[in-house]
Amino acid sequence: MKKFTTIYDIENIPEIIQEAIALKTDPFQYETIGKHKTLVMLFFNASLRTRLSTEKAAKNLGMEVMILDINSTWNIEFKDGTIMNLHSAEHIKEAAQVISQYADMIAVRAFPSLKNKAEDESEYIMNSFMKYATVPIINMESATAHPLQALTDAITISELTDKKKPKVVLSWAPHPKALPHAVANSFIKMMQSIEVDFSIVHPKGYALNPEVTKDIPISHHQVEALKNADVVYVKNWSSYNQYGQVLHEDSNWMITKEKTGNASCMHCLPVRRNVVIEDAVLDSKNSVVIQQANNRTYAAQIVLKKLLENQ
Amino acid sequence: MKKFTTIYDIENIPEIIQEAIALKTDPFQYETIGKHKTLVMLFFNASLRTRLSTEKAAKNLGMEVMILDINSTWNIEFKDGTIMNLHSAEHIKEAAQVISQYADMIAVRAFPSLKNKAEDESEYIMNSFMKYATVPIINMESATAHPLQALTDAITISELTDKKKPKVVLSWAPHPKALPHAVANSFIKMMQSIEVDFSIVHPKGYALNPEVTKDIPISHHQVEALKNADVVYVKNWSSYNQYGQVLHEDSNWMITKEKTGNASCMHCLPVRRNVVIEDAVLDSKNSVVIQQANNRTYAAQIVLKKLLENQ
Amino acid sequence: MKKFTTIYDIENIPEIIQEAIALKTDPFQYETIGKHKTLVMLFFNASLRTRLSTEKAAKNLGMEVMILDINSTWNIEFKDGTIMNLHSAEHIKEAAQVISQYADMIAVRAFPSLKNKAEDESEYIMNSFMKYATVPIINMESATAHPLQALTDAITISELTDKKKPKVVLSWAPHPKALPHAVANSFIKMMQSIEVDFSIVHPKGYALNPEVTKDIPISHHQVEALKNADVVYVKNWSSYNQYGQVLHEDSNWMITKEKTGNASCMHCLPVRRNVVIEDAVLDSKNSVVIQQANNRTYAAQIVLKKLLENQ
Repeated sequence: MKKFTTIYDIENIPEIIQEAIALKTDPFQYETIGKHKTLVMLFFNASLRTRLSTEKAAKNLGMEVMILDINSTWNIEFKDGTIMNLHSAEHIKEAAQVISQYADMIAVRAFPSLKNKAEDESEYIMNSFMKYATVPIINMESATAHPLQALTDAITISELTDKKKPKVVLSWAPHPKALPHAVANSFIKMMQSIEVDFSIVHPKGYALNPEVTKDIPISHHQVEALKNADVVYVKNWSSYNQYGQVLHEDSNWMITKEKTGNASCMHCLPVRRNVVIEDAVLDSKNSVVIQQANNRTYAAQIVLKKLLENQ
Repeated sequence: MKKFTTIYDIENIPEIIQEAIALKTDPFQYETIGKHKTLVMLFFNASLRTRLSTEKAAKNLGMEVMILDINSTWNIEFKDGTIMNLHSAEHIKEAAQVISQYADMIAVRAFPSLKNKAEDESEYIMNSFMKYATVPIINMESATAHPLQALTDAITISELTDKKKPKVVLSWAPHPKALPHAVANSFIKMMQSIEVDFSIVHPKGYALNPEVTKDIPISHHQVEALKNADVVYVKNWSSYNQYGQVLHEDSNWMITKEKTGNASCMHCLPVRRNVVIEDAVLDSKNSVVIQQANNRTYAAQIVLKKLLENQ
Repeated sequence: MKKFTTIYDIENIPEIIQEAIALKTDPFQYETIGKHKTLVMLFFNASLRTRLSTEKAAKNLGMEVMILDINSTWNIEFKDGTIMNLHSAEHIKEAAQVISQYADMIAVRAFPSLKNKAEDESEYIMNSFMKYATVPIINMESATAHPLQALTDAITISELTDKKKPKVVLSWAPHPKALPHAVANSFIKMMQSIEVDFSIVHPKGYALNPEVTKDIPISHHQVEALKNADVVYVKNWSSYNQYGQVLHEDSNWMITKEKTGNASCMHCLPVRRNVVIEDAVLDSKNSVVIQQANNRTYAAQIVLKKLLENQ
């Protein structure tokens, strides 16, 4: 592996899932593989799970970690040829090349604006780092993708069931704020890459990027769609067509115990209780959100290990 | 020790004091005891001494440390059953369980509002972490307690004198801002637990929680109270009865050389010079505030060691 | 070396340059020299290169690093005898002594106000740390000096040319914001200390402190001054006489390919493209700003090593 910016950077998904699960039994078995190697983690946006689990994963491998909340420094310019006489003090050309010299890998978190679809979809931040950095780039959630989460999710589903083709349903759920499409996008791509009976359910108006959903079955009847599901993956996203808009916050779409039945309930967290998912689900044994969050460490760790092995 | 949220978590105070002092002579004697163990430090509030000394203590024991200024992420919800459609993005139920999976111990700093006495006294933040976390919790100053400071103070008093029962006086001193009761509370509890001749002096209106002060002698005549003291412990706190109010900033209560005489002068820091304590005291040999701050490292280190030994 | 606050703390500049270059070939050759030693890095101001390269350097030597953005705590008082009843919660006397007990070295970044020349030139922040701290102080850019940058620059020039006396020109260039004199000051002092044919070119009104420039040739004709230069060192600074003012942003002074010709182009970064230096220079082989930024690590590392050897 030379970088990890989409799930397609994984060469063999079933294999990497098994390797991640093997790491869980002894997280320190490769504790010298990262000796003398430094991970720089750059945050353009807030983080709890991603930050702590990725830092932990790197340290489990013996890496040094340096963290920079880049908004606490100055604005970075991403456009070529700009006359930088306004609000940006440093161009990504310099920033990425310079940080590459202090790092053996750079992990970047940079959310979309949700204002300008073309700009967000250009993934200019992540792509600029890839273009100018001279070390591998790791995506800690970008404008349109969250592959570390998707790998985590695949690991978790693999742990949940021995079924050959479990029924997995991605269900939209309400949220008061406009949220990105990144988690949904990467989850969908991952479900297209492993053996599952996968479908999506969301209210009209919340269709995702058709280049991502392709020919995945999509319905708008939540109760019907969730029936007999083995896994319900819950996620809010803002409208893709009316880009970044919250069209409504229809509380009828909240995930309830009645709707999920015996299905395992997954969510990437943070989750707004009794808005996205009701307490009765999150506090039940069917909720696997804590187990899922734990797998963030091992998803990050197996990715870091693959990158280290390639250096 | 299974947690450290109050001084009563210490099984044997005289013993732990001696062990802390022994650590000072060789801070690295247990440098492998924390191998493969991670301390996560969570700050809801600012910190200088507590942050640096606790991080140092953990590293002296070979632990990994991950620090999160939690206000830089998003608001945490602490109430049960809330419909989280407003300002909180994650419930403590998830946050505490999730972080527990990345940590072997979680240290938390969370000050009181000083607006709502019942809420502050419920210690809902610290108690929620204790309730939902699955690893030991360390109190780095909560709404009503600062046990790491109190242990530091006991270590320092033990170093200061060989007297069997030194005279220790806790004196209120003026401060322009409303300050919490945590340091005073924990200090008082500690003084009730070791061999000292202890009393409190404060202006009328500044009585502390009677459940804390119990039958400790309290006076309102500072000069008289400080006479022949071996140790004067200086601290401001806001009113407890008129909860969180600064009733006055009577500069007559500032600690002066004249008042402290030959007594050792202690303060948890930060201290506003010439408001709380005058320069002539802080710059004299009688001030032991620097030695006291140094002991923060060893108080934290012995607590971490006890917690590690129990894992 | 007992501290590193100016370039004059370096005993033998040619020797330290060679030692830094030797470190580049194997950064981990002294990886145990910093065992059990802690570097505390204190930031009063934002940092990208200085923060990451200094942290990296310390870790390359086996040191522990603790970082505190001191503005996230509370205001520090620097004046003696102040009645601290306003905006400062802790005096530098306590802060510096206390942090010294958690650190084996303290690195400090504190920019000038650019409002009060006498105050800035007093270097009260750096000098207060030196006065009260009990461990070595490292200057990570102060009001008037940036010696880690100047050492980096000397290393870089040494790598660039074998000429006995290369022609080095420091050229002012335009910038929309008022910038400090620290980088220029330390660079000039360094150029006075090594074998170079050195001159300065800047617009009228931008004369630097004459105690720094001494008898260095100064001209106001940029094109003429840069002719046949081996190295052009580009830097903006605000007016020194009309202290902290941006007198004009004359775009004629931007560094262009035409002006620099075959000279190597240096800049401390961050650099505003097409304002300070045009793309055609920064994207050419003549730009050595990335190599220069890499040398920050080894400048910091050799300084830390010298300080460690003296402990």
